[in-house]
Order: sequence, then C-alpha cells, then structure tokens
Amino acid sequence: MIQKLTLAQIAQLVGGSVRGNASLELTGIAPLSKATATEIAWLSHPRFVSQLAASKAAAVLASPACDLSGTPAVLCPNIDKAIAQVIGAFAPPLPSPAQGIHTHASVDASAVIGQRVAIGPFVVVGQNATIGDESVLHPGVHVGDGSTIGANCRIWDNVVIREGCSIGNRVTIHPNTVVGADGFGYYFSDAQHNKIPHPGGVIIDDDVEIGACSCVDRSKTGHTRIGRGTKIDNLVQVAHNVEIGAGCLLCAQVGVAGSTRLGNHVVLGGQVGVRDNIVLNDAVMVAACSCVPQDVEAGARLAGIPATDSRQFIREKTSLKKLPELLTQIRELYKRVEKLEAATDDRPND
Amino acid sequence: MIQKLTLAQIAQLVGGSVRGNASLELTGIAPLSKATATEIAWLSHPRFVSQLAASKAAAVLASPACDLSGTPAVLCPNIDKAIAQVIGAFAPPLPSPAQGIHTHASVDASAVIGQRVAIGPFVVVGQNATIGDESVLHPGVHVGDGSTIGANCRIWDNVVIREGCSIGNRVTIHPNTVVGADGFGYYFSDAQHNKIPHPGGVIIDDDVEIGACSCVDRSKTGHTRIGRGTKIDNLVQVAHNVEIGAGCLLCAQVGVAGSTRLGNHVVLGGQVGVRDNIVLNDAVMVAACSCVPQDVEAGARLAGIPATDSRQFIREKTSLKKLPELLTQIRELYKRVEKLEAATDDRPND
Amino acid sequence: MIQKLTLAQIAQLVGGSVRGNASLELTGIAPLSKATATEIAWLSHPRFVSQLAASKAAAVLASPACDLSGTPAVLCPNIDKAIAQVIGAFAPPLPSPAQGIHTHASVDASAVIGQRVAIGPFVVVGQNATIGDESVLHPGVHVGDGSTIGANCRIWDNVVIREGCSIGNRVTIHPNTVVGADGFGYYFSDAQHNKIPHPGGVIIDDDVEIGACSCVDRSKTGHTRIGRGTKIDNLVQVAHNVEIGAGCLLCAQVGVAGSTRLGNHVVLGGQVGVRDNIVLNDAVMVAACSCVPQDVEAGARLAGIPATDSRQFIREKTSLKKLPELLTQIRELYKRVEKLEAATDDRPND
Repeated sequence: MIQKLTLAQIAQLVGGSVRGNASLELTGIAPLSKATATEIAWLSHPRFVSQLAASKAAAVLASPACDLSGTPAVLCPNIDKAIAQVIGAFAPPLPSPAQGIHTHASVDASAVIGQRVAIGPFVVVGQNATIGDESVLHPGVHVGDGSTIGANCRIWDNVVIREGCSIGNRVTIHPNTVVGADGFGYYFSDAQHNKIPHPGGVIIDDDVEIGACSCVDRSKTGHTRIGRGTKIDNLVQVAHNVEIGAGCLLCAQVGVAGSTRLGNHVVLGGQVGVRDNIVLNDAVMVAACSCVPQDVEAGARLAGIPATDSRQFIREKTSLKKLPELLTQIRELYKRVEKLEAATDDRPND
Repeated sequence: MIQKLTLAQIAQLVGGSVRGNASLELTGIAPLSKATATEIAWLSHPRFVSQLAASKAAAVLASPACDLSGTPAVLCPNIDKAIAQVIGAFAPPLPSPAQGIHTHASVDASAVIGQRVAIGPFVVVGQNATIGDESVLHPGVHVGDGSTIGANCRIWDNVVIREGCSIGNRVTIHPNTVVGADGFGYYFSDAQHNKIPHPGGVIIDDDVEIGACSCVDRSKTGHTRIGRGTKIDNLVQVAHNVEIGAGCLLCAQVGVAGSTRLGNHVVLGGQVGVRDNIVLNDAVMVAACSCVPQDVEAGARLAGIPATDSRQFIREKTSLKKLPELLTQIRELYKRVEKLEAATDDRPND
Repeated sequence: MIQKLTLAQIAQLVGGSVRGNASLELTGIAPLSKATATEIAWLSHPRFVSQLAASKAAAVLASPACDLSGTPAVLCPNIDKAIAQVIGAFAPPLPSPAQGIHTHASVDASAVIGQRVAIGPFVVVGQNATIGDESVLHPGVHVGDGSTIGANCRIWDNVVIREGCSIGNRVTIHPNTVVGADGFGYYFSDAQHNKIPHPGGVIIDDDVEIGACSCVDRSKTGHTRIGRGTKIDNLVQVAHNVEIGAGCLLCAQVGVAGSTRLGNHVVLGGQVGVRDNIVLNDAVMVAACSCVPQDVEAGARLAGIPATDSRQFIREKTSLKKLPELLTQIRELYKRVEKLEAATDDRPND
C-alpha cells in the first residue's frame, strides 16, 4: 500500500544529486522533528543543520549549502520546489467523482459539458452553463445559468457559482465558497436602505485558487475580477467590483471592500482589511491584522490600524512601550523646571 | 438580446427630465471611466464633472447641480435612487428554479407551502415548516422543522435555516449562510467545558438581507433577533441572543458577541468586533477594524481597539506619529534642564 | 405541548434544595428581565439580587449565597451547571433525520456504517469511510473517501469533511463548516506561485465542537490536530499543520496560521489572529481583536496588535489618551526651558 521511492528516484524527480546510498528506500516525507526512520526530511536552510542530529529521518532533501556530515541526502538546486515535488510524489491521487454525470446530479439540458468531465452527486448546472474539458465538480457544487468553467478546473464540494460568472482554466475552488453573490450596496431613501441591483458578474482568470468559505461578490456594473495566478485563502471577502491583479496572495480572513483595485503581486497578511474605492499598486505588502485606509504606492510595506509604513509602525509601537514611563518623566521634568523657575525668580534682581 | 432604453424611457423611469436627444438609445449603464459609446454613465456629484470629458459615455444620469455642457443627460432629483433604478432596468431577471417543488427536493408532507413558491433541487424542508407565497428556495437550501419563511423571500443556494426559526417577508439570504446554529456557550465544571443547550430560535424581521457565509446563532432562551430592514454583509457573525434593531448596516466580517443589543440605524464598518452583553444605542457608527468593549451612547462615532470617540482616535494616532521624535526631544530637554540645574547650583550663594 | 416541571423536579435534576412551594409548576426558563409569570429565572451571583424585584419570574435558580427574601427558589451548588441542565430539561429533542440511510443519500457500498446511524437526504459518504454508532449526518453532509467519524457524533447540514480525516467520538460540527480543505501553501518559482500538495489529514479528538462556516485545513505532511474537548466557534480559520491542545476555546472569527501550536486550555477571544510557526503554551488567554506575533509562555494574558502583556496594553492605551495633551505640555515646557536658558545666559558673568 505504501508508496516507496529510492534516493535515486527522488534525485531524478527534483533534478538533484544523491549523497550516500542511492538505492535507499523511503516511505514518506516529514519535517526533521517528525520524520520516522524510513522517511526523508528536509533541510531548507543551513541554520537548521543543528536539528539534524536529533532527527530520526533516514535522509534529507537539502540545499547544497548545508553541511550534512554523512547523512544520506538529495542535494536540490531549488529546495522549496523539491519539497513540494516529493510531497506530491508520495501523495495519493486526489479523490474525484467518476467521469460523466452522476445520476443524482441536476444538469440542465442546455448546458455544454466538455470531454472527460466528472460531475458528482447533487451537483446543479444551470441553463446554458459551460463546463470545460477534464474539469471536476465535486458533490453539491452549483453552477448558475450562463456561467462558464474552463478546462482542468477542480471545484470542491458545495461551492456556489451564481449566474453569469466566468472561471478560467486550471482554477481550484475549495468547499463552501461562494462566487457571484450580490454586492453589499444600498441607497438610503424613503427612510430605509434600498437595494442596488448587482447584475454584473465575476471573472476569475486562469490558475487562480480560492480557499474554503470565501466570498467573491458580483458587481453592480461590469465585473469583479481576480487576475491570473492569484491565490486566495479561506474566509476571505472580495467585495463587488473589486479588481485584483495577477500573482497576488490574500491570506485567511482578509477583506477587500467594494471597487478597490489591487495591482500585481500584492500580498495581504491574515485578517487584513482594505477599504473601498482605493488602489494598492503592484507588490504592496501588508502585515497581518492591518487596515488599509487609502491608496498605496507600488512596493510599499505597511502595518497597523490605520496601516502606515512598516518601519514607522515598529518605531511607533516601540515608542509607545516607553510612553507610560515617559509620562512619569515629564511630570518630574515639570517639577524640576518649576524649581528652576522659582530659583531664577528668587535671584536678586540685578 | 441586449435590452435598449431611450433617454426618454430612462427619464420616465427615474422621474427625471431629459437634456438633449430624448430618443437616444442606450444599451447599458456603467461608471464614467468604463462606459462605452452606447452606454449611459452617472455623475453623482458636481466634483466629478471634470471626468466627463474623458468618458466615452453616450449620456449621463446627473444630479441637477451638475454643469454638463451639452452632454445628453437625464437630470435626476434623487441620483442614487436613479442609478439603482437604471441598473435594475438593464438587468436580466434573477434566475429562479421553476415554480413548484423540484422532483429532487425533499419536502416533508407536513410542511405548508404557499402559492407560487419555487423550490429547487436538493432542497430540504422539515416537518411543519412553512414557506410563504412567492418565496424562492434555490437549490440545496435546508429549512428545519417548524421554521417559517414569509412571503416573497429569496433564499439562495445551500443556506441552512435550522429548526424553530422565523423569517419575515421579503427577506433575502445569500448562499451558504447559516441561521440558527447553536450559540457558543459552555460552563466549566468537572475539568472540562460543558455544553449549554441552545433551544431558542432566531427571528428575522421583514426586509432584512443577509450576505453569503454569514452566521446568525440561535439563543439559549428567548430569541436572537434581527430588526426590520437591517442589512448584513458576508462572513458576519451574529452570536446567540444578540438583538439588532431596524435599519442597521453590518459590513463584511463584523462579529457581534453574545447577548449584545444594537439599537436602530447602527452602522458597523468591515471587520468590527463588538463584545458580549453590551448595548450600542441608536445611530452609533463604528469605523472598520475597530473593537467595541462597552456600552455606547446614541449617535456616537467610534474608532480604534478598544474603540473610542473617532476624533479622539484620530488625535491619538496623529500624536503617536510624533512620539518617536518626542522621545528624542525629551532626552534633549532633560540635558538642558540638567545643565540649567548645574548652572543654578554653580551660582554664587547670595 | 409545553413541558412543565415542578420546583421539586428541578431541584432533583440539579441536585439542589427547594425554597418555597415544591409543587409549583414552571413552563420554561428565561433571564430575570424576560421571564414570564410561569417561568423560572436564574440568579447567578448575589450582585444581581436587586433585579429580582422587577422580575415577573415565578421562581429562581440561585446560588446559596443569594438573599432571596421569599421568592420561590431552587438553591444550586453549581449554578452555571444548573442553568444549563434546566434549559436542557425544557428543550425539545434535537431534530434528526430518521435512522438508516435516506433514499436520497449517496453512500458508497464500501463505507462502514455503524448501528443506529441516521443519514439524511443528499448526504455523500465516500469509499471506505466509516461512520460510528449512533452518529447523525444531517442533510447535505459530505464525508470523503477513507475518513472516519466516531460514535455519537452530530454533523450538521452541508458540512464537508474531505478524504483521509479522522473525527473522534461525541464530536459536533455545525453547518457549512469545512474540515480538510487544502492548506494555503505555495512556493514561488518560475515567476509564479506554485502549489504545495497537502495530502496530510485532520485529526479531531473526542468531545470537540466546531461552529458554523469554520475551516480546519489539512496538512502538508502529518496531521492538523484539534485536542480533546476543545470548542471552536463560527467562522474560525485553523490552518494547515496547526496543533491545538485539549480544552481550548477559540471564539468566533479567530485565525490561527500554519504550523502554530496551542497548548491546553488556551483561550482566544473573538477575531484574534495568531501568526504561523509559533507556540502558545498552556492556559494562555488572548483578548478579542488581538494579533499574536511570537511564542507565548504558559499562563500569559495578552492584548493588542501586536499582542503584549494585558496590563502593559492597558497602561499604553491609558497613556496614549494623554499623549495629545502631552504634546502641548512638552511645547510649553520647551518654552519655559528656553526662557530659563535665556535668563541664565543673561545672568551677569561673575
């Protein structure tokens, strides 16, 4: 049952070179602290070499710079890539419904279903929807009227994609995420909040991945967009008419408010909030738990509520720690100045 | 396929007046920066008039105060309302399952289903549940035993409404939201957390809208309540026994902890946290990413963690920016005072 | 229809003693402020005794220390436990699908289903999955290939448990929660974010409860773990490879980033964020809306962004309130020092 790989096979897989017994068989991969005597571990940086002695690992994937003193190893030109490749090589294939349309799915007759598509039980595909070749719709997925899913997508259980949305190729969406719900938009009139319709759609480009229980809202006019290769974690809110560039990372519980634009390669740490109608230019990085209130220039690194330059944030926080003591010092200084003033007043008036 | 409207038709719809060619045909509506040469845009405030020159829009919806210099227009007494009306006029009708009960739905024989109700595939309606006239249950909705849904409601895909909950008329709930899950309540005894039952329900009044992936928990005793016309965004947590008044706005990722009460017309910005067992009185407004730790008087505007008066918050943040420099100044002041003291001590004792 | 209990029955249930008419019949339980004339209320602490006069409650559950001046009562050695027991006694039984497998469920022939299991409509149970005795799978639950659910579990509607996960006994998971989605892990190479596979699973120990719309991600290698008796609220993110000890409480909208470890009895307030790869030792308590950036020693109480010792946090916030005024004072102090310096310089050079 357990997949085995030799050091030689692993070296070939990652484009690395063997140190030690090339025919050594490994049964899996784990971190140094958890690897068993038949597993390979990884040493991603020379500073972890000291942990090697205490590890039971039979071998290590290591960057060439590491001094391994005799541990069997595969030296890897790109250690992060090698770790991912070896994890993948030991992994079982992802589960999938059988190819074809499950008897308990509800697929409209007008929907266009590609080659080798797998549609699980309790899936709903609406009128004139399109599912591209080799895509997988896990159980309970709903694809709305007129929406299109590209090729080689994997849409996990209970994801809801409402009508008029467009999903590119090789997109993965994790369970219970919602694409294309109405944006949160009202106008106040007649003493109540009145709904603004959101007939616009959502466009998700190729190679995007969206986590579980996240929301990407549809737009008032035009489209909400997520650019190629952007990765979004769990429980993230992307509001109506937001435009996100390519290659961004949005960590868990991030919220981006309406009509805000993110450039390419923007990174938002966990729980970051970004206000509506602003622009975060390319390569902006925002620290976890920050709140961005205004436009940000390319490459800036921010932190805090409201977010400011990261170094300024650290400076302020460091200063703040001294503030309680400072208040005491100021009071003391006051007294000393008063005393000096009294002494100066006392001075014979010459 | 594309719906067309003339300027005259748009003027009639919004109760406005035409400027220019009344028979001009428009194919859609979009913001100034995105409108094509066959679309109408909007000019919600005179300060945006300068953007008119660069726009390709064929016409604009504008408030009468705007100086349009010849652009075909509909002048609107209520521009926000007019924008929403025109977006709605160009929008296709919302998708809906066919009226009646889908063959793949599971509706208990004791449930009471109103006139012209649409129940989609994989919907579950429990014992003695009631669905009001013309309401729509999209695919995968679950309505628990004894729960009631009013008339003209739209419950989107995979929403779960547990047993014993009551939903008013014209309520919209977006996909994957959960109404009536157990509150988070335990007592510590016998060295462990022991569950407090939550048999109470949830009451949602008329005209409420709740976003996607939000949670409204059921109560220990009595009911969790959401007042008439309140609008709740995505990924919002409303805990057990919370009572929310009428006309409130809760933006995305807000959390309101157990037994807290909100008055009417309270506005909570994105990601705001509100602690348990407190009261936020009418018309309180809390800035995004704030945390409210105590009762708040009517009309107050708060910001910060913990939240304080908004102007005080800004004052503190502005001061904080100067704090690192201040520390340097204080050190310098110390030296100067020391020098003065030394000089004073030096002074001939007269 | 309404369940009635006498004071004597309630006293027996909670192991307490009756004060007043033991045969008095009660129809329910509610807080002092909401109880009707046929209900019992509770008085959990002597400081609430003053609310007794205004209450309509027919009787109270009270801790023996309370002075009740004649109100019929049950004096309870453990008042919190007694409240929960009486709420439970008046509560109707939880709804449940009928025992057996619903005709509209999709259960793989290889799955092992225990005794007296209830499986609702539109449930999916994958290959070689195991469901323990007396467990309840509400409508729309998906259990992935090879996953195991222990005995006496209650998995609410639309919960998704992906492949290879292990759930203990007496576990409750609320609607629309996702267990075992891929972790958020990528390596940057070839100018793009490349996916790290997450074949590892999730292990959830006995007596855990997880709220609605929460996410517990699967691991890269090994397992993400949630320890015995830990309780997790709604909309919580537990990232890949996180390990949470026993008896912890994670309030709503908490996020714990990848590979972080929590000891036993850790308490995280609502919306707390915890960074990746750190350790929070036993009994750490973190105030709501805080962000924990580094290892925390056992028993520490933290607050703030970044989180610091709670008392220090309060000291800083209190000082910060005085900072705007302080800036004015410092400017004044400067002037007085300058004046003193001028006076000193003026001094005749003797």
